[in-house]
Amino acid sequence: MAFQGKKLINDPNDVVTEYIEGLVETYPGLQYLDGFPEVKVVLRADVSSGSYDKVAVICGGGSGHEPAHSGFVGDGMLTAAVCGDVFASPPVDSILSGIRAVTGSKGCLLIVTNYTGDRLNFGLAAEQAKSEGYNIETVIVGDDCALQPQQGLPGRRGLAGTVLVNKVAGAAAAAGLSLADVAAEAKHASELVGTMGVALSVCTRPGQVTSDRLGPGKMELGLGIHGEPGAAVVDLQPVHAVLSHILKQILSKETNYVPISSGNRVVLMVNGLGGTPIMELMIAAGKAVTKLQLEHGLAVERVYTGSFMTSLDMAGYSVSIMRADQAILQRLDARTMAPCWPVGVSAKLAPSKIPVPLPPHTTKSDEALTRPKELSVEGHILEAAIEAAAEAVIDLEDTLNDLDGKVGDGDCGSTMFRGAATILEDMRSYYPLNDAAETINEIGASIRRVMGGTSGIIYDIFCKAAYAKLKESSRQVTSKQWADALEASIAAVSKYGGARAGYRTLLDALLPASAVLQERLNAGDDPCTAFLLSSEAAVSGAESTQHMQAQAGRSTYVSVDILASVPDPGAMAAAAWYKAAALAVESKHKCL
Amino acid sequence: MAFQGKKLINDPNDVVTEYIEGLVETYPGLQYLDGFPEVKVVLRADVSSGSYDKVAVICGGGSGHEPAHSGFVGDGMLTAAVCGDVFASPPVDSILSGIRAVTGSKGCLLIVTNYTGDRLNFGLAAEQAKSEGYNIETVIVGDDCALQPQQGLPGRRGLAGTVLVNKVAGAAAAAGLSLADVAAEAKHASELVGTMGVALSVCTRPGQVTSDRLGPGKMELGLGIHGEPGAAVVDLQPVHAVLSHILKQILSKETNYVPISSGNRVVLMVNGLGGTPIMELMIAAGKAVTKLQLEHGLAVERVYTGSFMTSLDMAGYSVSIMRADQAILQRLDARTMAPCWPVGVSAKLAPSKIPVPLPPHTTKSDEALTRPKELSVEGHILEAAIEAAAEAVIDLEDTLNDLDGKVGDGDCGSTMFRGAATILEDMRSYYPLNDAAETINEIGASIRRVMGGTSGIIYDIFCKAAYAKLKESSRQVTSKQWADALEASIAAVSKYGGARAGYRTLLDALLPASAVLQERLNAGDDPCTAFLLSSEAAVSGAESTQHMQAQAGRSTYVSVDILASVPDPGAMAAAAWYKAAALAVESKHKCL
Repeated sequence: MAFQGKKLINDPNDVVTEYIEGLVETYPGLQYLDGFPEVKVVLRADVSSGSYDKVAVICGGGSGHEPAHSGFVGDGMLTAAVCGDVFASPPVDSILSGIRAVTGSKGCLLIVTNYTGDRLNFGLAAEQAKSEGYNIETVIVGDDCALQPQQGLPGRRGLAGTVLVNKVAGAAAAAGLSLADVAAEAKHASELVGTMGVALSVCTRPGQVTSDRLGPGKMELGLGIHGEPGAAVVDLQPVHAVLSHILKQILSKETNYVPISSGNRVVLMVNGLGGTPIMELMIAAGKAVTKLQLEHGLAVERVYTGSFMTSLDMAGYSVSIMRADQAILQRLDARTMAPCWPVGVSAKLAPSKIPVPLPPHTTKSDEALTRPKELSVEGHILEAAIEAAAEAVIDLEDTLNDLDGKVGDGDCGSTMFRGAATILEDMRSYYPLNDAAETINEIGASIRRVMGGTSGIIYDIFCKAAYAKLKESSRQVTSKQWADALEASIAAVSKYGGARAGYRTLLDALLPASAVLQERLNAGDDPCTAFLLSSEAAVSGAESTQHMQAQAGRSTYVSVDILASVPDPGAMAAAAWYKAAALAVESKHKCL
Repeated sequence: MAFQGKKLINDPNDVVTEYIEGLVETYPGLQYLDGFPEVKVVLRADVSSGSYDKVAVICGGGSGHEPAHSGFVGDGMLTAAVCGDVFASPPVDSILSGIRAVTGSKGCLLIVTNYTGDRLNFGLAAEQAKSEGYNIETVIVGDDCALQPQQGLPGRRGLAGTVLVNKVAGAAAAAGLSLADVAAEAKHASELVGTMGVALSVCTRPGQVTSDRLGPGKMELGLGIHGEPGAAVVDLQPVHAVLSHILKQILSKETNYVPISSGNRVVLMVNGLGGTPIMELMIAAGKAVTKLQLEHGLAVERVYTGSFMTSLDMAGYSVSIMRADQAILQRLDARTMAPCWPVGVSAKLAPSKIPVPLPPHTTKSDEALTRPKELSVEGHILEAAIEAAAEAVIDLEDTLNDLDGKVGDGDCGSTMFRGAATILEDMRSYYPLNDAAETINEIGASIRRVMGGTSGIIYDIFCKAAYAKLKESSRQVTSKQWADALEASIAAVSKYGGARAGYRTLLDALLPASAVLQERLNAGDDPCTAFLLSSEAAVSGAESTQHMQAQAGRSTYVSVDILASVPDPGAMAAAAWYKAAALAVESKHKCL
């Protein structure tokens, strides 16, 4: 497997300082010490050491784990974060600068991940700071549960559980506790959390080539966050199996890494490693909650899902579980201004799913529809119009298919035929023809059921919009109301379909028809005459599409020469059914 | 280039429903309609249509863009999000269910991205809902600036600018505005925003093979968010050049897509596409702000950096720029419970960088140090001890290198020699020998300057801890105080280095020495005798390391057989300087 280490960066040596510059542009509550490139310290913009009356809480370490820890700086969490170069512990002077910048009279807690470099550099900085008169405590976090216990160094690695420890300590400090008490809470929290990860890829350092350690179809379990090999490389499995394994290992009674047993309350953190979409993180969170509850008998009180402590662009995530009594939950829930601590994560009040609402009982569709035993005059006319329109479309099947074969996929006639035939059939069996609005609505339903595709949904929108308009009328629909319904239908099709006049669509038939209809009715013409005249406009409008460039649908990909040889089949179909309806209405009107 | 489409999922057909299940576990303020798999609607847990007295705001579309739009559901932003399958518009009935579930008497605004499927399905649902008596308005967002203007469909695509439109609309609705006013604000906002993206990889649909469209060293500009090809594939460039191009295209006067010109106030959104680490997003944000200000004369009022509207696992990001007057800023700043809207993004109050604090003037190091003209009795003894200790280490150089060659990297003697030689040199020129505490501090500084590596920092910590302890004493340091300083030093080295007794380190020499020293002094022994006896303990402690398993440092990788043939060189060095110092103190004490 060979994929290259592409990154959207400038000089690979500048990634950390440029990250910090972007971070403080994004979050105005943060600032940094003006000591680039050596000193890379992000701190609260509202804290200065001279006046700060709370315990300062500082975390830090190598970069490449963003947003850890700089994104967790803010009231209620970290007072400052000290950033090293990528995967390299920050130097002592940089840590000291951070301590000096934010530590007030109540002192400073350093939260350090359990890596030799971090321990030593933060340790030396702590001792130096003490000799300068600062009160300093240090808590070392090692929450890794991937490796079997072994005596001695380096011991369990510090992973995403560190973020939870930071939150507990930050909240304790914000509550005004003493340095000793804040340190004790942080130490306690660090002993309650265990973490293990799974990865699909190895991270790539800026400017370097991607490792090909993991092959296709493989994943790595129990990984580190610096590109170091994980505990095992295994075949990719469904995520529920992966999670079962991870949860069992974290909660193993054999290693006894975390003091969690059945009946305990816990919080869960699913932590993306940098290249993992939130979709996959959420899938893991949902499955992990179920497994913790059902397979381990734990009450999951909070779920933190996101990318908190990453490993550059690594695809995968870690899972952390922390025992959480009420005191811990209070610290985790406490308000913070730290921009990357998740919001909206608190106790559940409502059920997680509710029934799909039923449609309101305002349409006739809910009742058993039947064709009226006796048709009114309007019902007879409507029936004749629908019948004529549908038959006109049926008669045109082959012609429309031929036209569409030249400019589209050749099925316009067949699709329209399907709709028309179904309308005829459904009308005979159940259209409530004495109610024009409901009948139009049913035409839409028939079309939607059988036509499919864009034309089906367009004609359904056409009918729905007419229905909404006609419903405003009484059962006896006036000519003007029919004309307004047509106008509303055309507007809806144009709005949602995105086409306008001249786009070589069915609108090029219907728009001129609607205009003429309104115009003639306003001029006082007889409705039948107005309808007929408007249908002439529909036909000439449809024919004029032959000279139009396609702006919508498949025809946009067809050459101008071919388009110029035929009119748009959709417009021709619309003109045909419109004209047939007009003729039928006139003819029926004369008979009745 | 061939990288496989690995994902941490279960059945590819279940990714959206499982995502939603995880989402509501994570965010208890959200719930969903119980209509899986067809109906995938996420809604506010605190809203029910019967009593909701604000305009409902719904956005939706195909999935694969998480957290859009479900992560933006919450008071002050969306009332519900309707999710389709991956990259597929949700069906009409699903949209209708969402509308029915949250729409109260003030009606509902549908915010729709400009794709044919979304327009038609949301359009039909809108018309159906209207016919059911709901007040519905629809705003279509097309913010893409990558393609040249072309008449007709599908027009400009809806991209991450949609998230900003959602926020404006949601805040307007939360403020109690009417449906018409909320829709007008949303439409206005949609006309003020432009977006363009860059990608390093093509997204992979769940269960499918990754496209190899983009080769090594290539990037794609003006991409879509459904895996469709971008406007151009070009060679990978430094990110500042990429951003210059993107910003120019968005703000182009030729296309005139967004009404933004020099002097305007704008907000910036840098939106990760799913597989992009936050480090790269922040780098882009920082550079884009500078360019917008300096190259385009715009005032950047807010920066939103994160992954808001993604394209599965695509590596890359989009940049959106929105003109933002005070009214828009007020909507963007308004409080929301939507979990994925960024927090901590508001007006800047403090400067973004502040000076690195100077070290406090509490140590002698700030003054010009000089060797005292006249040494006190204690100064003479201290000088003799340091000299003897350093010379003992110098004499052992080859022996230590030999030992280390068997169990480590063979440079223990050379490293220790460097430190010892420098100490001798510095002592002659400036150690303030009449002040024991400050002298020990200077020894640490000398070591730190030249020794490097783990042993350098360990010895520096050793000296710093002793210094902090000795500073508590008067200049005249008692034997007990020296013993306590040794104890503090050992404790610090153990804490930060992580080693304990029996780990085969220098502690195995110093721990027994310290114990004997305390014991003999407490027993009332003469200090010189106590020191000498303790140095015997140091030597036998060091020799006993030959029988120890390595628990720290490089020796952990060496076989037991080899380890059993030699003692630990670090422990031997410590015993040597300790013993030499003890002998020198006794001898000097007798002379004076």
